[in-house]
Amino acid sequence: MTTISVVKNILDANERIAQENRKLFDEKKVYVINLMSSPGAGKTTLVEKTILAMQNKYKIGVIEGDIQDTYDADRVAKLGIPVVQINTGGACHIDGNMVRETLPTFDLDATDLLIVENVGNLVCPAEFKLGENTKVMILSTPEGADKPAKYPLMFHESSVAVINKIDLMPYVDFDLEKAKKDARKINRNLQIFEVSCKTGSGLDAWFSWLEEQIKGFKANLK
Amino acid sequence: MTTISVVKNILDANERIAQENRKLFDEKKVYVINLMSSPGAGKTTLVEKTILAMQNKYKIGVIEGDIQDTYDADRVAKLGIPVVQINTGGACHIDGNMVRETLPTFDLDATDLLIVENVGNLVCPAEFKLGENTKVMILSTPEGADKPAKYPLMFHESSVAVINKIDLMPYVDFDLEKAKKDARKINRNLQIFEVSCKTGSGLDAWFSWLEEQIKGFKANLK
Repeated sequence: MTTISVVKNILDANERIAQENRKLFDEKKVYVINLMSSPGAGKTTLVEKTILAMQNKYKIGVIEGDIQDTYDADRVAKLGIPVVQINTGGACHIDGNMVRETLPTFDLDATDLLIVENVGNLVCPAEFKLGENTKVMILSTPEGADKPAKYPLMFHESSVAVINKIDLMPYVDFDLEKAKKDARKINRNLQIFEVSCKTGSGLDAWFSWLEEQIKGFKANLK
Repeated sequence: MTTISVVKNILDANERIAQENRKLFDEKKVYVINLMSSPGAGKTTLVEKTILAMQNKYKIGVIEGDIQDTYDADRVAKLGIPVVQINTGGACHIDGNMVRETLPTFDLDATDLLIVENVGNLVCPAEFKLGENTKVMILSTPEGADKPAKYPLMFHESSVAVINKIDLMPYVDFDLEKAKKDARKINRNLQIFEVSCKTGSGLDAWFSWLEEQIKGFKANLK
């Protein structure tokens, strides 16, 4: 019982900080994505493609979460985008406080879209709010279609599931219809995009959807 | 500081239970593998192939760890092997106590090899000992060669890294030499097998290695 109450206290404290982050993001009109997936599902590549497609219209910032190293932040920095690397030093997820600590390094008045790339983990990140507008998860086809049934919280908490590596479908056993059906059983409002970040296939629909969200968010704040 | 001390207490308690499990496994001469990887890297398929190759020589039992559902246990049960499903109900890893709870359901006197398939997660399971002889991790080629640098604890704690989905190498950007070099930088004694659980390529070396370990373990206990 002790363990459970400790976890609850941690989640309560995180919730409070996430709400404070959210308040600041609303004041500054920053649309925030919390991007989550298993290791290697394609988060950083989706971030890169999204920057390349949208940086002429929107001012974008990125927070990269990794246990250690700055590989992903280095990739994003090459695109001329403000980026901060969080090294969790072992922790399996980003929390609200880690995001808060990075915020003074951004010019939030000059930021339309902030993408937080979480630690690669299909379990724990789903439990921690960051103050995001939207949780976006990636499922890659080599991971298999049983993932919604096995990792339900991630599919339940996310508003969007990007099914990536569609180009590998001929070479892997991935039942796309089963994956979509099982995901929607957990979350019937889940928005699903089928893409290949490698070939670019399907990404236009994701860019359009994201642009609509940013516009709608800014319009609501007026 | 509170959080850190709680985590330490949990790990200390787990260590004690893991040692008790280990003592029992030694008494019963059961060689135990803790099998870990990202979601969808091929753990269950490796378990199935290992059972099919070795069940004529060794009595095998399996513990399947999942957040929920019994998909993996159902797959293993079809092979006529004693299998217990642990549903962690949200928890991102198996711990020593969960393993202990399953043990009365096995006939340990009639078990040579017990394979514990952990929750799909490249982070947290590496922190929790179960009383295993060997930690074995799988890295699948679609995950990318940057994984040793990004998830070092898993590579540090494991004795074996099985690099799976070698058959997908022509279709994914996976630098095999970099992955191996970076993994051995973290753990210079790491035993690496390059396999395709789908085609069977490379699995014979894994079976031979495992057989040697079981024989050596039993010989040492005499």
